[in-house]
Amino acid sequence: MTAAHTPVTLAAFGSFTVGGRRVEVTDRPTQVVRLSRDLPEFPVDPNGLYSVGHAYVQYFVPAPAERRPVVLVHGGGLTGTCWETTPDGRPGWLQFLLRAGHPCYVLDNVERGRAGWCPVPGVGEDAAPLLRTEREAWDAFRLGPPEGYPTRTPFAGSRFPGDALAELNRQQVPRWTTTTDLAVAAVTALVRRVGPCAVVAHSQGGGIAARAAAGTDGLVEDLVLVEPHGLPDAADFAGSTGRQLIVAGDFIELSPLYRDLRRRWRTYLEELRTAGVTADYLDLPASDHPGNTHLPMMDLTSDTVAELIVDHLATR
Amino acid sequence: MTAAHTPVTLAAFGSFTVGGRRVEVTDRPTQVVRLSRDLPEFPVDPNGLYSVGHAYVQYFVPAPAERRPVVLVHGGGLTGTCWETTPDGRPGWLQFLLRAGHPCYVLDNVERGRAGWCPVPGVGEDAAPLLRTEREAWDAFRLGPPEGYPTRTPFAGSRFPGDALAELNRQQVPRWTTTTDLAVAAVTALVRRVGPCAVVAHSQGGGIAARAAAGTDGLVEDLVLVEPHGLPDAADFAGSTGRQLIVAGDFIELSPLYRDLRRRWRTYLEELRTAGVTADYLDLPASDHPGNTHLPMMDLTSDTVAELIVDHLATR
Repeated sequence: MTAAHTPVTLAAFGSFTVGGRRVEVTDRPTQVVRLSRDLPEFPVDPNGLYSVGHAYVQYFVPAPAERRPVVLVHGGGLTGTCWETTPDGRPGWLQFLLRAGHPCYVLDNVERGRAGWCPVPGVGEDAAPLLRTEREAWDAFRLGPPEGYPTRTPFAGSRFPGDALAELNRQQVPRWTTTTDLAVAAVTALVRRVGPCAVVAHSQGGGIAARAAAGTDGLVEDLVLVEPHGLPDAADFAGSTGRQLIVAGDFIELSPLYRDLRRRWRTYLEELRTAGVTADYLDLPASDHPGNTHLPMMDLTSDTVAELIVDHLATR
Repeated sequence: MTAAHTPVTLAAFGSFTVGGRRVEVTDRPTQVVRLSRDLPEFPVDPNGLYSVGHAYVQYFVPAPAERRPVVLVHGGGLTGTCWETTPDGRPGWLQFLLRAGHPCYVLDNVERGRAGWCPVPGVGEDAAPLLRTEREAWDAFRLGPPEGYPTRTPFAGSRFPGDALAELNRQQVPRWTTTTDLAVAAVTALVRRVGPCAVVAHSQGGGIAARAAAGTDGLVEDLVLVEPHGLPDAADFAGSTGRQLIVAGDFIELSPLYRDLRRRWRTYLEELRTAGVTADYLDLPASDHPGNTHLPMMDLTSDTVAELIVDHLATR
């Protein structure tokens, strides 16, 4: 589990929460619960104060911290775990950024992972959340063609670590599809707390991060969007001094879903430029780095892509 | 947020999962979902492979790692977060153990936090989980007398950081009361992976850790149980070379629940000694460290208690 690790000295690390609100529940019936054989059955009164809508943030400050803070926003169905370790056990983009001198703030966004959620009916989200099957991950993360799944045969040239599919399955957690606005509010609160920073965000997290950046008055100096969806209107960034970069992987022409998304990315970037915003497109296969899936932070070339992003951040 | 931090050099850190099983779901109806405005509505097929019953483990290896690995097992309703940062933002026991040279393995046990859970009916736990109210935490964590809650007046001399109650509320996540056996299996798998080690466990995690230790043939050389419940029979440790220590806080005589638990601890330790096991009781108030609640890893004296535990581990 320690393959390819390089020592990193941390001046500080730990966690805090951002965003959310307090909810008082009243007039609900008592439940009877027994937690272990040492404890008697006891009544649990669900009435009282709960916290909902907050995000969990794990932070790591390297020593020396020579570069800007980076906020890392995971995509749908994943948690901050996706940045720390690839599913085949290599160090993730988090470690690469720390070694480069960037303090890092890793989110588990609202109702995901360590952020927790409120199961009291009427307080949190009442419909059931979704959890991806391995097959849905295969398709949604562009790991291989649909007909390749039964034999786990990826796209030819794919750099996703093929033996890591089961661990990827375990890195995924349930997610609601109705909490995006709360997630935007949590990232907004985090950016305001961190101050001037870069934000690196993946997939649905890209749309969430972009909306948060649009609402935080230039605090997000660099927005790195890895195959984002849910993007705001480019006009929301009129006058912004923050730069934006969309990072795109390989095999897009083989996926109708991603072909459509790529059109959206290109339109968005064009509209940003028209609005006077510095906006670039990092097309990994055209940049001589073929084989990336929708999960470049997990692909075998993860450090190579991380280096491209760190180099990009260093140009400001 | 960096108050009282001391730099720590990590040779490696990251995460992996342990335990659990794969489940194949078939014959369920398709759902229609829309994830963001860039994506069309699309059918989600819930049929396929899921992972359930695994735990998430975040590991930190200090450089140099001069002491034994320590596995940290959280209590009911909490996650590994409880070890990394106190709710008032100070470094947690995790950092203290790392600075002392112990590699640390921090669990989010089965269905908690980053371990995730399966929302497909019939696959995971079907009943609703529980989340503590602030009031329930006040009582269950022995922060103050019941009549003190409305004004947040703690036990006289309490060392819990009083202004941190709301953050403690946000550190808690939903938990099922039916997954203890799975949690024991996950800790067992982790101990087998780590090898000879110490385990520091809190509350319900204490019972879980003790059961895992009883099943792992002396790999757990030291079991530090912070106010545990759900303990196995002491006879399960007959012939064990592993030492056990129960750590108990203050104000126990003011809580009927904890008075009963303390009787159980004393009986358990007596039975362990009868079975030839080295078993000790660290009574914090009697050891000149008064004021601890059920959450000594969060109390204002958290580093003092951590030091007592590190010193205890060093005697082997």
